Amino acid sequence: MKERIYLYDTTLRDGQQTPGIDFSVEDKITIAHMLDEFGLDYVEGGYPGANPTDTEFFRKKHTSGSKFAAFGMTKRVGVSASNDPGLALILQSASDVACFVAKSSQYQVRVALGCTDEENLEAIRQTVEAALAAGKEAIIDCEHFFDGFKANSDYTLACARTAFEAGARWIVLCDTNGGTQPAEIRQIVGKVIEAGIPGSHLGIHAHDDTGQAVANSLAAVEEGVRQVQGTLNGIGERCGNANLVTLIPTLALKPVYADRFEIGVTPERLATITHLSRSFDELLNRAPNMQAAYVGASAFATKAGIHASALAKEPSTYEHVEPESIGNRRKVMVSDQGGKANFIVELKRRGIAVLRDDPRLDQLIALVKEREAQGYAYEGADASFELLSRRTLGIVPDFFKVESFRCMVERRFDANGQIKTVSEAIVRIVVEGQVHMSVAEGHGPVNALDLALRKDLGRYQEEIEDLELVDYKVRILNGGTEAITRVLIESQDGSGARWWTVGVSDNVIDASFQALMDSIVFKLMKNRELAGQVAAE
Amino acid sequence: MKERIYLYDTTLRDGQQTPGIDFSVEDKITIAHMLDEFGLDYVEGGYPGANPTDTEFFRKKHTSGSKFAAFGMTKRVGVSASNDPGLALILQSASDVACFVAKSSQYQVRVALGCTDEENLEAIRQTVEAALAAGKEAIIDCEHFFDGFKANSDYTLACARTAFEAGARWIVLCDTNGGTQPAEIRQIVGKVIEAGIPGSHLGIHAHDDTGQAVANSLAAVEEGVRQVQGTLNGIGERCGNANLVTLIPTLALKPVYADRFEIGVTPERLATITHLSRSFDELLNRAPNMQAAYVGASAFATKAGIHASALAKEPSTYEHVEPESIGNRRKVMVSDQGGKANFIVELKRRGIAVLRDDPRLDQLIALVKEREAQGYAYEGADASFELLSRRTLGIVPDFFKVESFRCMVERRFDANGQIKTVSEAIVRIVVEGQVHMSVAEGHGPVNALDLALRKDLGRYQEEIEDLELVDYKVRILNGGTEAITRVLIESQDGSGARWWTVGVSDNVIDASFQALMDSIVFKLMKNRELAGQVAAE
Repeated sequence: MKERIYLYDTTLRDGQQTPGIDFSVEDKITIAHMLDEFGLDYVEGGYPGANPTDTEFFRKKHTSGSKFAAFGMTKRVGVSASNDPGLALILQSASDVACFVAKSSQYQVRVALGCTDEENLEAIRQTVEAALAAGKEAIIDCEHFFDGFKANSDYTLACARTAFEAGARWIVLCDTNGGTQPAEIRQIVGKVIEAGIPGSHLGIHAHDDTGQAVANSLAAVEEGVRQVQGTLNGIGERCGNANLVTLIPTLALKPVYADRFEIGVTPERLATITHLSRSFDELLNRAPNMQAAYVGASAFATKAGIHASALAKEPSTYEHVEPESIGNRRKVMVSDQGGKANFIVELKRRGIAVLRDDPRLDQLIALVKEREAQGYAYEGADASFELLSRRTLGIVPDFFKVESFRCMVERRFDANGQIKTVSEAIVRIVVEGQVHMSVAEGHGPVNALDLALRKDLGRYQEEIEDLELVDYKVRILNGGTEAITRVLIESQDGSGARWWTVGVSDNVIDASFQALMDSIVFKLMKNRELAGQVAAE
Repeated sequence: MKERIYLYDTTLRDGQQTPGIDFSVEDKITIAHMLDEFGLDYVEGGYPGANPTDTEFFRKKHTSGSKFAAFGMTKRVGVSASNDPGLALILQSASDVACFVAKSSQYQVRVALGCTDEENLEAIRQTVEAALAAGKEAIIDCEHFFDGFKANSDYTLACARTAFEAGARWIVLCDTNGGTQPAEIRQIVGKVIEAGIPGSHLGIHAHDDTGQAVANSLAAVEEGVRQVQGTLNGIGERCGNANLVTLIPTLALKPVYADRFEIGVTPERLATITHLSRSFDELLNRAPNMQAAYVGASAFATKAGIHASALAKEPSTYEHVEPESIGNRRKVMVSDQGGKANFIVELKRRGIAVLRDDPRLDQLIALVKEREAQGYAYEGADASFELLSRRTLGIVPDFFKVESFRCMVERRFDANGQIKTVSEAIVRIVVEGQVHMSVAEGHGPVNALDLALRKDLGRYQEEIEDLELVDYKVRILNGGTEAITRVLIESQDGSGARWWTVGVSDNVIDASFQALMDSIVFKLMKNRELAGQVAAE
């Protein structure tokens, strides 16, 4: 009988502390759905009352399978639990679980709270009781647990015991500074359990300040802790939190853990973790870490060298797990053995049949490699990949042709002396031999170009009325304002289908134009059922 | 009496296996000097004979303090050591040390080498003897050590013992696949020492495939291993090697290690490790990891308001080591989550004194919150924050004024029927009552605007000659081509100082213009010592 490890995600709370990351309410909803669907046990959404975004987000519950957790502080010293407005906001939020950060270091209680030891214990007790009375599962997050324990273990243990005896489901041991080493974690967790707080009620919250967040979490699990907290891709304050994207495959696939423990993430979901990790980076508009454990594009890549020939003989020799188990893939950089097969599978998925020895297939593979070297990213641009494939392997009708375009951005003072920036675009399109010229003003040159392009497509105009651009991403691929720019555009139509297109140029307008054109042509193909076996997501 | 831990750097050999990294001979020389100066015990330079770069590099010794190591394979089965041309190249190279990779898994010996168990042991013995006879220190790197040990510990131990008895200074236990967990490392290292190979002759070579390379290295040290191998910033094949930039501060500063062990890196050198890490990324032409343990720009950054006030009171509360000990620095970020204490600390660091009850401080906080709600991100844009603060709390001279600008992007067929996109910008600047008009073509409208803006600043022109834009980032804050755009620009000048500025608008050109203007004004302020107490990094 395996013991259950519970996974607690704090991407939306501690992850929000990452420098440079700010989630909108819409971001939070999208991420909560991703986490819920993936099968995590707890999704912590934020701190209702701390800022308008979190307060708004907690008006509704955003998970179905996962427990939805609100974070906050234990009640203030000096007021009763029922008279603490901050606590009330957490208890009134649409959460299943309330997780309260509590001081658990005597030094912190004195310096930061300025109250007596007993007042802090009383705050913990009353807060847990109030949460239970409100029908919530209660969690106490013991801040500075390990540092506090080292300085005065009796008081730190008293905090944990008070929470446990008051009925908290979990007491989370938090390495707030992130400086504790695995050997210390093992020793202290052992003493906590010895002191009578069972591991089945203990959680671990580790930070990566010494590159040991994963090791510290697993060390705690080995000693008996049964809840692990972390974030997607290890985002979080300072050096980040324990990376769930690393921890989950290790718990699920490494015999030293998998033989003893089970988690709520099924093998089917585990096979989507590479996609989950990369989609999350996409949402953050940042390049995924190629060298990330398990899910990085290089995690199963072997460069020409002593290992390459052995890998060709026997892949398992140089792979510690099967890349497929986590939705990643092997990559041999000298001669991509799996390359051709991958393409055939990818094309088949889109209804394009091609024979293995068709020379046009080699041509397509060469073209994709060449364009990816230029900066195109077809993995994130299904529709552009499909168009490129169809253009190489068969035909794509010339629906229309853009002969030229011109964008103009002007910033000057208007009649009232106010600064005003105006953007205008003019396009010249030929449809069945007939010239259509359109002009439009927009919010910026790309929007103006988009509006002008879709203003008059002649006989196709009606067909694209339900085409909508839902996302637009720009990534600079190297430094400076003269850098190569990659534009990704997400489009949607009335059927609910979504597709991504890509453009690359040293000119952001040009890159945007390519992606816009691909989107329109893909839509016209799709209307004719000539393309677009793309799953509506 | 502390025990000595020896540090072995393999940046130039295993690090060279990183996808996307290829060192030239000049790169290798520069890096070897950096490592030597820093105080590492061993610098492994590559594999003479494997490629022309490495062969060339080993014509001379490139370290003075560090031992200079060449890497290669044990002698081939079927020829004597003196008749193996590959081995000869290593023994003839200008190295102090020869490190040989040897198969130490019975399965590998049979599948990959196709020889008998005894033939492989004999190859190890003869190779060590040949290296000693050539006057080198000999190291045997036991490939697949942990996987081999799990499958047949007797044979794997026999390989290690053969090397030790033949006189190898070090037997390195290599986790080739990177999948071994710390608990397994501890167990197996314990058994190796029990079997009679002393820890003082054992090394550990860990890979980061499960995010445990640092933890595995330290677990081995705890069990008795005394040589640790790794690379700068953890570069290396697949997910990389153990990161020496993380391991070194942990060994030097964490009592659990520092009380027992000593390393060859002095406290003075340790205080340059942040610089070493960032210089190395600079050489690789990649952005340093902001969240890197110890050395990341965010490693001592605090965003949360609740932590910031405690941090101002007592820095050690939220810092596991002193940032200065590793040459990093504390950073309290200004953001809509921060409180008044954040602002005062940040302003003070910039030499701006303000009283807690100064109404202009409230005005500044309100302004920052309002602008962050619009999409500005001041935590990533130090210089824009400083300018905004100085404008609110004091004065910023009106150096010049941009009356108007116009950008034009045109795509059309040129005389040869080729599609061509041209970008042009015109700016009208007033300096001391005099109008300066400039026009420039660029790669895209932003680059054209940048070039035109900096083309003629009148009397300030000379002052900005050393201003360089080193990075340009665009983030779309909500969906569609009409979305709000945030532009972040990183600038640098001749002094090596770097600063970030931000612009936000629904028009990418406008947003870029704001960030460009802030960068130029900041540079002019900095030249006058009116701003820019930003550490040169």
